[in-house]
Amino acid sequence: MAKNLTTREQDYSKWYNELVIQADLAENSGVRGCMVIKPYGYGIWEKMQAELDRMFKETGHENAYFPLFIPKSYFSKEASHVDGFAKECAVVTHYRLKNDENGKGVIVDPDAKLEEELIVRPTSETIIWDTYRKWIQSYRDLPLLINQWANVVRWEMRTRLFLRTSEFLWQEGHTAHATKNEAIAEAEQMIHVYSDFVENYMAVPVIIGVKTESERFAGAIETYCIEALMQDGKALQAGTSHFLGQNFAKAFDVKFANKEGKQDYVWATSWGVSTRLMGALVMTHSDDNGLVLPPKLAPIQVVIIPIYRGDEEFDKVSEVALELQKELRAKGLRVKFDNRDTQKPGWKFHQYELKGVPVRIAVGPKDIANGTFEVARRDTLKKEVMLKNEVVDKVSGLMDEIQKNLFSRALDNRTEHTTEVSNYDEFKQVLDTKGGFISAHWDGTLETEEKIKNETKATIRCIPSDVEKEEGTCMVTGKPSRERVLFAKAY
Amino acid sequence: MAKNLTTREQDYSKWYNELVIQADLAENSGVRGCMVIKPYGYGIWEKMQAELDRMFKETGHENAYFPLFIPKSYFSKEASHVDGFAKECAVVTHYRLKNDENGKGVIVDPDAKLEEELIVRPTSETIIWDTYRKWIQSYRDLPLLINQWANVVRWEMRTRLFLRTSEFLWQEGHTAHATKNEAIAEAEQMIHVYSDFVENYMAVPVIIGVKTESERFAGAIETYCIEALMQDGKALQAGTSHFLGQNFAKAFDVKFANKEGKQDYVWATSWGVSTRLMGALVMTHSDDNGLVLPPKLAPIQVVIIPIYRGDEEFDKVSEVALELQKELRAKGLRVKFDNRDTQKPGWKFHQYELKGVPVRIAVGPKDIANGTFEVARRDTLKKEVMLKNEVVDKVSGLMDEIQKNLFSRALDNRTEHTTEVSNYDEFKQVLDTKGGFISAHWDGTLETEEKIKNETKATIRCIPSDVEKEEGTCMVTGKPSRERVLFAKAY
Repeated sequence: MAKNLTTREQDYSKWYNELVIQADLAENSGVRGCMVIKPYGYGIWEKMQAELDRMFKETGHENAYFPLFIPKSYFSKEASHVDGFAKECAVVTHYRLKNDENGKGVIVDPDAKLEEELIVRPTSETIIWDTYRKWIQSYRDLPLLINQWANVVRWEMRTRLFLRTSEFLWQEGHTAHATKNEAIAEAEQMIHVYSDFVENYMAVPVIIGVKTESERFAGAIETYCIEALMQDGKALQAGTSHFLGQNFAKAFDVKFANKEGKQDYVWATSWGVSTRLMGALVMTHSDDNGLVLPPKLAPIQVVIIPIYRGDEEFDKVSEVALELQKELRAKGLRVKFDNRDTQKPGWKFHQYELKGVPVRIAVGPKDIANGTFEVARRDTLKKEVMLKNEVVDKVSGLMDEIQKNLFSRALDNRTEHTTEVSNYDEFKQVLDTKGGFISAHWDGTLETEEKIKNETKATIRCIPSDVEKEEGTCMVTGKPSRERVLFAKAY
Repeated sequence: MAKNLTTREQDYSKWYNELVIQADLAENSGVRGCMVIKPYGYGIWEKMQAELDRMFKETGHENAYFPLFIPKSYFSKEASHVDGFAKECAVVTHYRLKNDENGKGVIVDPDAKLEEELIVRPTSETIIWDTYRKWIQSYRDLPLLINQWANVVRWEMRTRLFLRTSEFLWQEGHTAHATKNEAIAEAEQMIHVYSDFVENYMAVPVIIGVKTESERFAGAIETYCIEALMQDGKALQAGTSHFLGQNFAKAFDVKFANKEGKQDYVWATSWGVSTRLMGALVMTHSDDNGLVLPPKLAPIQVVIIPIYRGDEEFDKVSEVALELQKELRAKGLRVKFDNRDTQKPGWKFHQYELKGVPVRIAVGPKDIANGTFEVARRDTLKKEVMLKNEVVDKVSGLMDEIQKNLFSRALDNRTEHTTEVSNYDEFKQVLDTKGGFISAHWDGTLETEEKIKNETKATIRCIPSDVEKEEGTCMVTGKPSRERVLFAKAY
């Protein structure tokens, strides 16, 4: 167990907060609800960005950049969107400060009031569709496949690092299509891109599904989502992709001439993932000793720690360590040789365990004498002595092995914490004792969904896709149900 | 000459504005002073970012992310900084909108007024140094070498795409050091990193120097800069690096225990370049036909255009073009085969000329019969017929040749437009007729600098480093001058 780190058993929520700070991922700033993403945390986010960006480009998307500010009136143009997004937001009302005449520092200049207030973007559909009107005239301009990497602000009263912050970083894709089917296919394609990324890079298994009407994105016809299960049995929405129909095209008057020369409104999608994924990554794999990172996203995949007394031993050990570092790097691994003399080996072991480095190699005089290395895996905490001539291949192989082990461990946890129930009493009992995903029949009404939410705090996470539909009767009302849906308490 | 593009001769400023829009780099948005960076423009910016980011990491820097908002009071802590930055800025005063009771859409909720206003960051020294206080205790925590890629907002009344916009994208490095000399060395290192990037990737020659006191960054002890000369004889500041002394450490109480255990304030630097570099890139190389891009930053380096009539010819030409594309890509080139049947070859030629693609290759039935390709260079507009078996190597080689030619052409232009003058009349005459950089003696006082600026609109761009100092007498006052300085009208 890590020193000073609350265990998951003691208090999962406290464990998470402490871990994010102790592992140098992020911290709260002097600005309410806004976080500072520290270099180690940002290094992981950069790896996520790089993979996602590559996947977006491989599916034909290009990046662009749209304004941070959105005029207030833009939000009013799409009726359901304004209710969902224009409420808790940062509002810019003035464009100048001035020196206070009473010498009390700077004050807002009342003469510099904006004619129309600007909203710091909570999401960019409105400003982007206002722009697309100028870009789209004909079917030749379609599809328009654009992504933006940006910061967004949604004012939050209760914040938690990565999971819920007033400002966060994300990407938002916004595409325009000539036909309904093409737009639906795009929205579905992108939820699968997300699922591919989250499962194969983050090693976090997800359920793909669609949201119920009440949980849909404000302005969407259909919201596709991926849902992950954390170690405490709570669900986390890891990404969403929306089929927006012609709602935004109509609100912003974006029409195109089709091949027959007829004018029609454009079909839209939008899709996004955010720094919230960092929270999912931490909560899925980490343990009471600290972070556990999947090798594909770890800024440092292998750390080499020298064990020595005195300068002479240090020189010998360093020579061997540097040679090993070189060979591992030649295999494409991200390796750090921590040769600082200001810290002891024990402190370093603890530190890299806390930071989730997948493999640690210790090199001391005994190892040199024996022609061996001591190799420790972060995921299993197991140590193995490896021969000098096999260590490079074995450690290389470990990357793949650890990546797979993390995924299968998380999948086992999810399987264990997914329960089919047949009545409401059983539902409540499972929710209170075991938690996790609960698969149940529901009559499809908002009323029943609300009732369950109010009575149990569980929400419908999604109506799973890619599963066989099973008819039944609603666990609450007894009315007919077309299929099972997935409930859980959620982050 | 491109259709519909004003020539540089007619109106340089208008030419620039039209070119940025016609070449699909950027456009004005519905939000005053904020631009939309379009995919083609953003693609160039991404290439710039990738190279700069690599250079920053190679010099030991890590990326992090700090809040978009800065509490108003933070600005008041560093006296000169508040005057320079906290005036023309976007001020967030409220955190909620609500439905208007009279049904007039949404209005700002008066009950949601912030206790302290938040400023949208114009630059991040204050929020970062407020954070560094928590990160730095001992000399072991130093140096702290951090960079941030972010958007910033400085309210501007007159804006021009890329050159001056209210919101722009940039990177800002913020480093902390144990000694004055180390901080100065860092500031100097980074101005050289910038100079290396701008000259070797953007192919834009720059003068390295330091700013006079009046042109220094608000809060800096010394501002290093790189200055480039545009085709119209006006200078453009392409990047700055600041030695901040202990000003911010004192303002935010950031002390460290040195090796002797004594407390001292930390020494600081900051440095940044922005999307303004896009403006410099466009204005340095482009011509009356459109953009001219250096191969190292061009999103498309080679475009292949098929010439054909009918499907049969198209199939033959496509086969050859695709093979060529494959071979060029194998050499690491970014190649596009534009096989759209919705546009004619002439239109495509014009389009890629406008967009500055360095090399265009045309493939038609005649070329196939002759075993040749027609290769056109964007920089010289010259065409050459190349044999099939030599085209790949020759086009590969052209990348380097074009990159060098652009730099040397820009350097020649600068040399031609740099004039040493010995008196104020000559100074004014050169400024009015020839423009460019003017090297002159100045007495070192703010008064004289202001007088020259008011009378001629020319400012001291920098006191050049890396040149031999030549003593003389001030062209205005006749007082002694320690060295020549560089004047110009500037963007």
